[in-house]
Formats: sequence, C-alpha cells, structure tokens
Amino acid sequence: MNQLIECIPNFSEGKDQSILDALSDIVTSHKGVALLDVKPDVSHNRTVFTFVGEPQAVADTAFLLCEKATELIDLRRHRGEHPRMGATDVIPFVPVKNVSIEECVALSKVVAKRIWEELAIPVFLYEASASSSNRVNLAAIRKGQFEGMPEKLKQEEWQPDFGKPQIHPSAGVVAVGARAPLVAFNINLNTDDLAIANAIAKKIRGSSGGYTYIKAIGVKLEERGIVQVSMNMVNTDKNPLYQAMEAVRFEARRYGVSVVGSEIIGLTPAKALYESAAYYLQLEDFDPELQVLENRVGELGE
Amino acid sequence: MNQLIECIPNFSEGKDQSILDALSDIVTSHKGVALLDVKPDVSHNRTVFTFVGEPQAVADTAFLLCEKATELIDLRRHRGEHPRMGATDVIPFVPVKNVSIEECVALSKVVAKRIWEELAIPVFLYEASASSSNRVNLAAIRKGQFEGMPEKLKQEEWQPDFGKPQIHPSAGVVAVGARAPLVAFNINLNTDDLAIANAIAKKIRGSSGGYTYIKAIGVKLEERGIVQVSMNMVNTDKNPLYQAMEAVRFEARRYGVSVVGSEIIGLTPAKALYESAAYYLQLEDFDPELQVLENRVGELGE
Repeated sequence: MNQLIECIPNFSEGKDQSILDALSDIVTSHKGVALLDVKPDVSHNRTVFTFVGEPQAVADTAFLLCEKATELIDLRRHRGEHPRMGATDVIPFVPVKNVSIEECVALSKVVAKRIWEELAIPVFLYEASASSSNRVNLAAIRKGQFEGMPEKLKQEEWQPDFGKPQIHPSAGVVAVGARAPLVAFNINLNTDDLAIANAIAKKIRGSSGGYTYIKAIGVKLEERGIVQVSMNMVNTDKNPLYQAMEAVRFEARRYGVSVVGSEIIGLTPAKALYESAAYYLQLEDFDPELQVLENRVGELGE
Repeated sequence: MNQLIECIPNFSEGKDQSILDALSDIVTSHKGVALLDVKPDVSHNRTVFTFVGEPQAVADTAFLLCEKATELIDLRRHRGEHPRMGATDVIPFVPVKNVSIEECVALSKVVAKRIWEELAIPVFLYEASASSSNRVNLAAIRKGQFEGMPEKLKQEEWQPDFGKPQIHPSAGVVAVGARAPLVAFNINLNTDDLAIANAIAKKIRGSSGGYTYIKAIGVKLEERGIVQVSMNMVNTDKNPLYQAMEAVRFEARRYGVSVVGSEIIGLTPAKALYESAAYYLQLEDFDPELQVLENRVGELGE
C-alpha cells in the first residue's frame, strides 16, 4: 500500500519568475513527488505550491524548497498585502492516502528539526503538530509578522519549537505542521446582495456558532452579478460538503434566495465527494475503500 | 499512465470448492492482476469472478481461466437454475482507467480468437464487441442453452464469431465481449407491497420505456419487511445513479411511498459517485480528472 502526503508550502515571493522557476525545478526534478500546482499572487507577493508524493520524498522536497527559498528570498526587502513571517512562510502536510494525521505530525517534526539544524531558521509547529493550544492557529503565530518577530520571540510563550529565540536575518521564521485536507467550496446565490451572502456565511461558520470546521465569508462575483458564500472546509470528515450545501440552502430560503450552483476551487480528496454522494443517494453501509474499484488497485501485484 | 481493465468471468460451477480454488489460484498467481471477488451461487451452480489489472495481464488471465475451466468443468453433467451455455459461460471486459471501450473490444477479440484456436471452443462476441445487433444481448445468444446449442449453431444467423459451428463437447460455447461498467444499485422503499416496487421498476427501466441504460425489477426484502427496486445501471455515464434515485423518488410519491435507503452491491467506478456528488452539490465545471487529488497521482515520478 503506497502512502501519499500532500504538501502546500507558501513562499514570500509572487513576482520574480526566476525564483518561482528555481523552486518548481526542485519539485519536478525530485523522484517520488508530483508538482500539482503553482499559484503566484502578485499583490500578495506570495506563491502557493502544491505537490504530492511518498512521505520521505515529500519531506525531503519540502526541506529542499525551504533551503532554496532561504537562498533566494530576502524578507527584509519584501512588501506584499498578505501577512508573512518567513521567506518560506508555512509548510503544511496533509494526509491523502493510507496515511494518518499522526504520521503527518511526525513527518512535520522531522522536517522542522532539519530546517533549524541545517538552515538555522527557528520553527513553530502549528495545527495538528502544535505544542500548545495557542499555536494551533497560524494567524496567532504569525501575528506581528517578520518585522515584529524579534520582539515576539523574547516572550516566554513564543519560544520556537525548534531553534533559538532569534530570527534568521533574511528568512525570518517558519511554521510547519500537519492538518486535515482542506476543500475550497463556494456556493453561488441568485442575488447580488452581498449582505445576504455575509449573513449566511455567519450562520454556517464555526467562528460565529455554525459548523466547527467551516470557515465562510460572503463574496461578490461582479462579472456574473451574483454573490457567493465562499468557504474553506477544513475537515470534510467532520463537516462534509453536503452539510454546507444544505445549510446554505435553508438559510438562503429566509431571504427568498436559492442556490444556483457551486464550485470546488483546486483539489479535493475523493473521500469528500464519496461522502456527499452517499448522503444524497441515501446509501446504506457503503464502504469506498472496498467498493470503489480504483481503491482496489493497490492490491495489484507487480 | 497505467491502464486498468476489469474482467468478470462467469463459470458454470458453484459448489465444488476445489474447482473454485484452482480458478482463484490462476488469478492470484498472475502478475499484474488483482482478484477482487469470488461469488459462488449454489442454487445457480455458478460463480462470478472479479479481477482487475493491466490490459495484457487481464487478457492472459482470462484465457488461462477459460483453459482451466475447460479442463475441470463438464457441462454435460451440470445442473443449476441459471441459464448457461459454456463451462466458461461469459467473459466481459470493462474499461476502468485510461482505457476506452474500443480498446476493450479489441482485447476481447484477441482473447476470443485464442480461445477458439487453442481450446477449440466456439466464441460469440457480445455487447460492445458484437458483430451484429441481435448479438448485443447475452440472453439472445444464450437462448437454448448448452443442450440446444448444437441445433442453434446450424442456423445461418447463429454462426459463431470465432470457430466452427460445433460446440466443444464438454465446455459448450463462450460469450466474450466488452461492456461499460455496471453498477448494482438497489433503492429501498417504506412499503412491503411488491406490486409497487414492480410498478416503479417498470416505469424506470429501458425495456419498458424508461431510462435506456437502467435494468430494474421489484424485489422483496423479507427480513426487513420492505421492498426494493433492484437495478443494474449498465451505463452510468449515460444514466447516472442520481437519475435512478430521483426517478424512483418521484414515481414512489404517487403511492405515498418514500425512499428509505439504498445500496451499491459490490463495486462501482469512482466516476459514478463523482457524477452524483456533482449533481446534488450543483458543482459547476467540476473536472474529477484534474480536481480529485488521487487522480493526480499518475503524475508521480518513479
């Protein structure tokens, strides 16, 4: 049974194509990993890489990317709209196939240790890898950003998980951790009233009393003249896509508004779709591991 | 991109475990294929094997199974409730991944030719491999069964596609062909009235004017005191699972009856589930090939 882990490192460079090419080359030239996506954002001056592969290959590639970013990106000269604290800002590991979140946590710690020992960049562990509850949320760790980090590291409660309480002069600090797969799921409504989308988002998101593992905001789609509830489904095992859909549908009803469509941005684990198919088809005792043909291919001999 | 074909050969033996073991051994000892299921039926005196693998390995394994069945099964002594015409009764090839139905048709002809040339069993091509429209349906080819086959083969229109018009003395004739994946999908109703399940089945199945690629009958679930519409979804690209579900739902409504659940028996291609998830979640422009993480694994280096 081959194991698969996804890694989605964020780098503080969104403009210089030569730097992005150098980072891409590291992934494409490494055995056992596949580069799935490179998404630069010019105004954020930040790029999100997505790659997937076997655990050891993913760990090695993540380290090599961080090493290359340390060499090529100098945060002292970085300007961008997105908050950041490191040249390599964050490295999340996500279980995809035949891997537990615990194994991803273990892997994240190996990579974190190596980043400190070989690159002298202090590392914070976050999400499932966090060493305390106030380090689960990346935003809390990153607060103060690169410029405020030297002062922040002097505080007792913000000692790095690996390394000394002193930033790398040009590369800052890095957050490394394991988290459940995230699905970017947006639901479109037949109204152009952003207030309605925001009101619905507030009803369904965990931070204001809705579903624990749904993050949501209202967004205007100018070109289509409609609004959408834009969501990050941060744990589709706990809060599957169908819950978001049905909850948005019944919240919208009070405004006489309906769902006209939806979209998944980027990637989704197959499981998130099986879950919703099984719900709507009312499947009893359905086991995707056993019953989805493609999942049985692992049993193939050489 | 590795290619995957499923093969579901049916053998006219459902009782003698030593024979079933000998057939299983052929699959499990062959490289490049995985045995997914062996389902014997004692009253039918028939066993359905399911295996999957690379095209060449699947073709070779199918032939070797037919060879072994010819050696071990004598149809002259076979009694069972299920109609049959051969020791190996039927060998369907089903495209699973990165394979077209046309490639499966080509493969079926290679296997059919080999069965005639090396085992001297006449072969009929059926379903997508059929040489004429009256040979698409397996039941039409099999009509008359083993005992009536010598007479049937004398008719001009029932000349075998491969071989002379004379049955193999103990192994009869074989049907070989390619077909789309089939999903066994049953929908349970909150009534014990079999007449209602039958009436709904008639409304939705292709043979009586319903959906072309749905076969359906009513079935009583004695132990649960309910009935179900039992379906073979013979082409889930053309008639996805959600069509069956929604059609059964609205037909049931006229009897004041509701759907209480459903089941998928055995295997389903992932695609059949993506299709229904996308329908119910109202996904716009969703492309499972690009957006389902597991489907991107083929891009992995060695």
